[in-house]
Amino acid sequence: MTTIHQIETPALLLDRACMDRNIRRMQSQVDGLGCRLRPHVKTSKSWPVVQAQMQAGAGSITVSTLKEAEQFFGQGVRDILYAVALAPNKIDHALDLRARGCNLAVIVDSVASATAIAAACVARRVQLPTLVEVDSDGHRSGVRPGDPVLVEIGHALHAAGSLAGVMTHAGGSYDLDTPEALRSMAAQERDAVLACAAALRAAGLPCERVSVGSTPTALSATGLDGVTEVRAGVYVFFDLVMAGIGVCGVQDIALSVLTSVIGHQPAKGWIIVDAGWMAMSRDRGTAKQKVDHGYGAIGDSEGAPLPALWMSAANQEHGIVSLRDGSCPEDLADRYPIGTLLRVLPNHACATAAQYDAYRVVDGSTIVETWPRFSGW
Amino acid sequence: MTTIHQIETPALLLDRACMDRNIRRMQSQVDGLGCRLRPHVKTSKSWPVVQAQMQAGAGSITVSTLKEAEQFFGQGVRDILYAVALAPNKIDHALDLRARGCNLAVIVDSVASATAIAAACVARRVQLPTLVEVDSDGHRSGVRPGDPVLVEIGHALHAAGSLAGVMTHAGGSYDLDTPEALRSMAAQERDAVLACAAALRAAGLPCERVSVGSTPTALSATGLDGVTEVRAGVYVFFDLVMAGIGVCGVQDIALSVLTSVIGHQPAKGWIIVDAGWMAMSRDRGTAKQKVDHGYGAIGDSEGAPLPALWMSAANQEHGIVSLRDGSCPEDLADRYPIGTLLRVLPNHACATAAQYDAYRVVDGSTIVETWPRFSGW
Repeated sequence: MTTIHQIETPALLLDRACMDRNIRRMQSQVDGLGCRLRPHVKTSKSWPVVQAQMQAGAGSITVSTLKEAEQFFGQGVRDILYAVALAPNKIDHALDLRARGCNLAVIVDSVASATAIAAACVARRVQLPTLVEVDSDGHRSGVRPGDPVLVEIGHALHAAGSLAGVMTHAGGSYDLDTPEALRSMAAQERDAVLACAAALRAAGLPCERVSVGSTPTALSATGLDGVTEVRAGVYVFFDLVMAGIGVCGVQDIALSVLTSVIGHQPAKGWIIVDAGWMAMSRDRGTAKQKVDHGYGAIGDSEGAPLPALWMSAANQEHGIVSLRDGSCPEDLADRYPIGTLLRVLPNHACATAAQYDAYRVVDGSTIVETWPRFSGW
Repeated sequence: MTTIHQIETPALLLDRACMDRNIRRMQSQVDGLGCRLRPHVKTSKSWPVVQAQMQAGAGSITVSTLKEAEQFFGQGVRDILYAVALAPNKIDHALDLRARGCNLAVIVDSVASATAIAAACVARRVQLPTLVEVDSDGHRSGVRPGDPVLVEIGHALHAAGSLAGVMTHAGGSYDLDTPEALRSMAAQERDAVLACAAALRAAGLPCERVSVGSTPTALSATGLDGVTEVRAGVYVFFDLVMAGIGVCGVQDIALSVLTSVIGHQPAKGWIIVDAGWMAMSRDRGTAKQKVDHGYGAIGDSEGAPLPALWMSAANQEHGIVSLRDGSCPEDLADRYPIGTLLRVLPNHACATAAQYDAYRVVDGSTIVETWPRFSGW
């Protein structure tokens, strides 16, 4: 039986029991809202994680790359939504996936893209279910509710039998941190997409699928009548950004980076560890939150929080852990000697996990399994 | 013959001719200084790149992980320096590499680490050439010149026949941007390590190897008498941070990310592309430089600069390209229609390359080869 004390660092640890609790919580929340949960698997990119989500009740997935669609279709998942506006150079690939039996749907937010998809469908005498992306909060892509281009896109897709519905992602929820604001954003997300569904239907167009979601709004929504499915990704592991938003506690974070103390600069109060930004990612998502966790919050080898410490800076393979109060105790090297193992909680689980090719699945300090994960496009 | 117009985006492009020029420039610079060049291969993590560096005259490499040591030793490179202070849980691995014929050297900056290495060497009746890390600019790890702990570390290693020399890395050079400041930093880097070499020798200890290096100081040094080798990594590709420091021009950057326009938000002046931070990395290294390039500088499909644009923001799989002057032209979607290919130059080549498992090696728009790269530890 291997323990975390027998492996080289840095390593990516995944607390299985914690992940399972997170999966059950989201499934139960979305079940209670009367919607289907379509987990966004860009967070894990790992079949055992997705399998656990499917076994808990999800029947479909969301992906951020066609590589994710390929990988999980290869594992038997059929109902897949690719939730990034389809680039022209990916239309053939998407149609190939469908030709092989994958029930893939895609999204667009422009007449140009809708027309390109429709033309490809007509040429190949096939259909490609497409959802129109709606901009519910101004944070990125999508058609604004009320914009007549929505119906124009709808007609272009419908002419090729490929209009499947509407979808939105309230990414703006990441900037909030009170239950009231989150509930309000969840309602705004819902209302935006319902308005667009109504506009399509009023124009005589079909709108079977009405899809919303982000982890913060999914966990804050109180009523989603008219919505058919909810998408959420990072909840499976949670992270410090989600804790800062308030939709989980630090104890709910299933992912951590195991690192070793490799040096000290006592005059500066620095403990040097072998997890730098290559191991943590460069994500600084908590920088704009109430509590800035630098490159990560620190725990001991068993994961118990060490709130006096934080990773204040990072180079490629070096992390600088220092005292939050800025003090420089003379006995720093005695308190955290060379070889001390620490666990670093990530700002953003999607970014940190992407730096690794496997999860070391742990039960306490015991490594019970190793789960591969993939990256790239 | 495949061109960049026939592949899916995002993709990592490597201009071979540009890389070859960069390799020749650094080799010639270090040859002229009378030192050996030991390229830091953490930037590429790809054998064809390292092979080109070896063929240009480098006889040895620097690595940031033991995985890099394993991979390139497997390709036949024997002389390897692992330039991160050795964690106790990696001592056995390092000794195993040596037992298999790899001439691996390591670094430490503490008596505790030196003692642990010496004990392992004595127990296994082997030697592990170890350099003492010197702090030449206060930016991270190492023993300060003049600190008596240097000689203490030296004695601990020498007792096990494992003291090989001294090394330093003037990472502080990344914060400079004038030739004068860079020349001065190169002299400071050299002087710090020479002082430590002298201190070891004065104590009757050997100090065969005297190693310095960072790309900015390597290209700025004017005299390195007493130094035996120079380490540098990012010069092989260069990047926007290096251009901001002033040691290369934007035209010397060999690496770029090919991306497609997938949407527009004309009212905000946003062109949405399919390269987000997963494709660029979260590195914002130019944020503190005179010109902040956001998540990357934009060129057209052939790489010609489009200085009016920059990647001002990024989500996981979405990049937001906008006009530098903040304008919102009504004809944005006509100027850069859906499907337009752009090349994005990276802030930090090491971070961007790490997001990919291969380089598409290009000659203009033609993809002439695909070179695999690895990640992880």
